[in-house]
Amino acid sequence: SRELFVLTYGALVAQLCKDYEKDEDVNTCLDRMGYGIGIRLIEDFLARSAVKKCRSYSETADMIAQVAFKMYLGVTPSVSCSSAAGNEFSLILDKNPLVDFVEELPAERASLCYCNLLCGVIRGALEMVHLSAEVTFLQDKLKGDAVTEIGIVFLKNTEDKKHKRN
Amino acid sequence: SRELFVLTYGALVAQLCKDYEKDEDVNTCLDRMGYGIGIRLIEDFLARSAVKKCRSYSETADMIAQVAFKMYLGVTPSVSCSSAAGNEFSLILDKNPLVDFVEELPAERASLCYCNLLCGVIRGALEMVHLSAEVTFLQDKLKGDAVTEIGIVFLKNTEDKKHKRN
Repeated sequence: SRELFVLTYGALVAQLCKDYEKDEDVNTCLDRMGYGIGIRLIEDFLARSAVKKCRSYSETADMIAQVAFKMYLGVTPSVSCSSAAGNEFSLILDKNPLVDFVEELPAERASLCYCNLLCGVIRGALEMVHLSAEVTFLQDKLKGDAVTEIGIVFLKNTEDKKHKRN
Repeated sequence: SRELFVLTYGALVAQLCKDYEKDEDVNTCLDRMGYGIGIRLIEDFLARSAVKKCRSYSETADMIAQVAFKMYLGVTPSVSCSSAAGNEFSLILDKNPLVDFVEELPAERASLCYCNLLCGVIRGALEMVHLSAEVTFLQDKLKGDAVTEIGIVFLKNTEDKKHKRN
């Protein structure tokens, strides 16, 4: 049953909103916490899913959507590749169980990425299998978008990373 | 899968430990958060468990252990009545999934009730079915006890209190 988790997550976000005035700081904090969770969760994921090594970014994105999301959140986002280079993917969620008890963001929290923990979790887990990625929310139903969309950009090598940073 | 929940809960406790220096304040905060969760979770519980109204404190304690704990944490504590008056119960957990990733409490956090959220959840949920209770950890494996024990003391009838108040 996910309800206790979903409500506990809500309590965590509410606490961070008390702690930090700026939405950006809450978002950063959620991402950092998620990262710490991801680097631990990956072991559990590999042990229980018994998946084989992915041989492409595309396989990896499918694995996250079809196996990891299903396992931990009970939903399966659809995946689309959004770059000719084949390193950018979108996970599209019609339904996001993490916001089951959230009606809408308060007006003064318009820039909050409520589920940003998930981005950190994905980023941390990928890093433990030697894949660097940038993971961010591109759309969010909570903000009035039609769907919730998580963008994953796999960074190929150090040059890419430098490029991204600049 | 509970792992994401358990790790997220750990992140919440860690954040509160950053926020509050005193263990007592962290404990109070976890209990208060749990209370807020309990008063919302009860609806979900009643809807999904389709249980009938309990006719005694003893039945209520059994329901919490055998249905609610099973549903939300995947474990079933044993229940014992610990007062002649029949209003004090202990839930004994051999295994507490919430501490799966916790090795031990840091020395400077010796008074932390790591799972205190659960006490608040139980208290909040009970209040919504018109039962006042005090819920506290009596023993905790994390603190070196042989088992983890949650004590529930049902306080005499809210109706009586209302009556007196009016």
